Amino acid sequence: MGTKLGIGLLGLGTVGAGVAGILQAPEGRHPLVAELELVRVAVRDLQRPRPIELRPSLVTNNPQAVVDDPSVQVVVEVMGGIEPARTLIMRAIAAGKAVVTANKAVIARHGEEIASAAAAAGVYVLIEAAVGGGIPIIEPLKQSLGGNRIERVSGIINGTTNYILSRMAQEGVAYDDVLKTAQDLGYAEADPAADVEGFDAADKIAILTGLAFGGPVDRDSIPTQGINNLQSRDVDYATQLGYRVKLLAIAERLNSDAQTSQSLPLAVRVQPTMIPLDHPLAGVNGVNNAILVEGDPIGRVMFYGPGAGSGPTASAVVADILNIAGIRQLGEINGSLDPLLAASSWRSCHLVDPSAILQRNYVRFNAEDTPGVIGRIGSCFGDRGISIQSIVQFDASDAGAEIVVITHEISQGQMQDALTAITSMAEVKGLAAHLSCL
Amino acid sequence: MGTKLGIGLLGLGTVGAGVAGILQAPEGRHPLVAELELVRVAVRDLQRPRPIELRPSLVTNNPQAVVDDPSVQVVVEVMGGIEPARTLIMRAIAAGKAVVTANKAVIARHGEEIASAAAAAGVYVLIEAAVGGGIPIIEPLKQSLGGNRIERVSGIINGTTNYILSRMAQEGVAYDDVLKTAQDLGYAEADPAADVEGFDAADKIAILTGLAFGGPVDRDSIPTQGINNLQSRDVDYATQLGYRVKLLAIAERLNSDAQTSQSLPLAVRVQPTMIPLDHPLAGVNGVNNAILVEGDPIGRVMFYGPGAGSGPTASAVVADILNIAGIRQLGEINGSLDPLLAASSWRSCHLVDPSAILQRNYVRFNAEDTPGVIGRIGSCFGDRGISIQSIVQFDASDAGAEIVVITHEISQGQMQDALTAITSMAEVKGLAAHLSCL
Repeated sequence: MGTKLGIGLLGLGTVGAGVAGILQAPEGRHPLVAELELVRVAVRDLQRPRPIELRPSLVTNNPQAVVDDPSVQVVVEVMGGIEPARTLIMRAIAAGKAVVTANKAVIARHGEEIASAAAAAGVYVLIEAAVGGGIPIIEPLKQSLGGNRIERVSGIINGTTNYILSRMAQEGVAYDDVLKTAQDLGYAEADPAADVEGFDAADKIAILTGLAFGGPVDRDSIPTQGINNLQSRDVDYATQLGYRVKLLAIAERLNSDAQTSQSLPLAVRVQPTMIPLDHPLAGVNGVNNAILVEGDPIGRVMFYGPGAGSGPTASAVVADILNIAGIRQLGEINGSLDPLLAASSWRSCHLVDPSAILQRNYVRFNAEDTPGVIGRIGSCFGDRGISIQSIVQFDASDAGAEIVVITHEISQGQMQDALTAITSMAEVKGLAAHLSCL
Repeated sequence: MGTKLGIGLLGLGTVGAGVAGILQAPEGRHPLVAELELVRVAVRDLQRPRPIELRPSLVTNNPQAVVDDPSVQVVVEVMGGIEPARTLIMRAIAAGKAVVTANKAVIARHGEEIASAAAAAGVYVLIEAAVGGGIPIIEPLKQSLGGNRIERVSGIINGTTNYILSRMAQEGVAYDDVLKTAQDLGYAEADPAADVEGFDAADKIAILTGLAFGGPVDRDSIPTQGINNLQSRDVDYATQLGYRVKLLAIAERLNSDAQTSQSLPLAVRVQPTMIPLDHPLAGVNGVNNAILVEGDPIGRVMFYGPGAGSGPTASAVVADILNIAGIRQLGEINGSLDPLLAASSWRSCHLVDPSAILQRNYVRFNAEDTPGVIGRIGSCFGDRGISIQSIVQFDASDAGAEIVVITHEISQGQMQDALTAITSMAEVKGLAAHLSCL
């Protein structure tokens, strides 16, 4: 098989150590792993004890030196964060080196810039580890589903929030209490905002959207609602009504009749969502992730597994390195790229206005317990052409009557009109919750 | 992108028509689909009405003419059956043409012969559609999990039996009745043996085993037990004990300490298996399939979706064709192959003797309802070092006492000894059921 492929690692945290561990012990894995050689590693602090033993000559605290090292052919970026990761990735591409990264934040925000530079330089930038941890999802989207017209990609793609929601549902514990336990166990960061406010999931769905539908979308315009304001009451009511609450990221084509010559309208969002118990995503618990892809003619396929962690994420990083090593066996190919593996954009896509998003809704109102209030709320929906699946009154001793409504599918614009009208009714004290509903 | 890639289709049944349908309507799919051109189609009967419209000049009833046609660069074999499929595949390889096939029977039995011919000729033989219908599983095993030491692959990989088992569990219906309905609905063949006796699943697990562990195993030596003798009583007891019965195909490495230089011992089998309700495979119902892959360091990942049908299987076939089209964009590569995509064997594997297979067991005995019989059966296991998880007596009015035992993990050799001893006890009338148990 000739000389080994030189790997330069930027970062030796959880994921970096996992990758180094695989490269150092190739026995029993695919034989191509033995063709990879870790030749340089950048760490932040040379003095800090390292999770894995490395020859001192391999280690540097200068990441640029790793990128520039002529023996490094593949740059593996597992530092995280926007900078200096972005600059280092661009520098590697400019030097004609392949890049493997687990950095969803950089790819979600600078994916277009990185992809055009990579195409111009004739190098691959592979990102399997950026979404879904160890779950193969990027590769299947790029290489196994191309015969389909993708209709929808939806998923539980943040393990921290799924852990919190699973425990809230199973034990009836309040959000703040579970978050604290999750932090103690290392499942949630000391500053949990990126996870619990949905930003991490928004990064990931932005990436999946670009791959599934063939064109990039503006990450910062994705409507994003986290679980930080979710009340355990709604998790309980969901259970009573036959649902589970999950933080769901969804991307779907809004108008399946659109011509390919036009920009494709997509509804993309992250929000707490009620999922019926018989739906394949309802049973995904704990820190697991799952991504459901729906398309024509495949129907529905789901990819399930550990969404984070050293080993799973390292598995995904090594998968990407192996793909580069595999292509390399084809010999001198003069910078031409396999269009499936390179996954360049092939269509223009745009996000629709949030008011045009169609979905079922779960809403909960606090109301006075007066006769006929349910009827008047129901009429208010009906007058606006919104049909209702169920309307249930729960008696909450502390809050008068609680009225929970589940609607059929309706645009968020129409829904907002109805909510404005209802919350201005004298006997309605306020809108206490508004979730999406599958 | 240059000239189109010429596709020759062998067979225009359910799957063939699905493939032709995708190729004829590329809009909205990956742009590489538009680079594929269906240039020749072999059908069995030229007079029969066709499910899809084709230019008459494309159609022939001579499959060899399709393989030999110089405009055909990729031969897509979707005829099924061993011959003439095998001969046609070998002929295509000899002519230096890539092959895509959905034919699990040919690959399970003649995979080695086909793989060596393909390697010698420098062509790809791709088989995504042979296992799991539309579910991407072959590609992920080949290209996304290579950094792992695979420990176990287990799956529900036959849709017909899963449909039957799901209805038996949900409605308490007897096997024969559900089979009849399945046949009426087209989910089961008039001759259901290949499905219900487990042979189809054995073909598929043989293929998955070779890919996951890196070496072929002897298809005909895989212990195979179907669901045709399964009694609804055991499905009911499973439910009462917190399990679902599924026809599970399993391949696992028996001794994880084995050196890679030696042949790897594998326990592979197909058998009705009790799956605990909280296991990810327990919720896979109807004609769906799911494959669980366990390895180090990834942990557990699962692939779920429609295991058969025109659209899903065609999606998998087109995925393979696209992979060949993608590699072709790299230009003239002189017969060198990407070792991941080509998936050649890299290790010697062998099946262990069935008596060495380790598993938990569910057994049901018919016994006389005499005092102490449970204790004596329990002792019989204990005397042989077999520890028991539970032993329960169900009272069946028609059959005296029914004693159900679930053991901890034990070799099938030891289990057989115990069963021989127990069935020779005077008060035990016989062994009524013996299933595997996760």
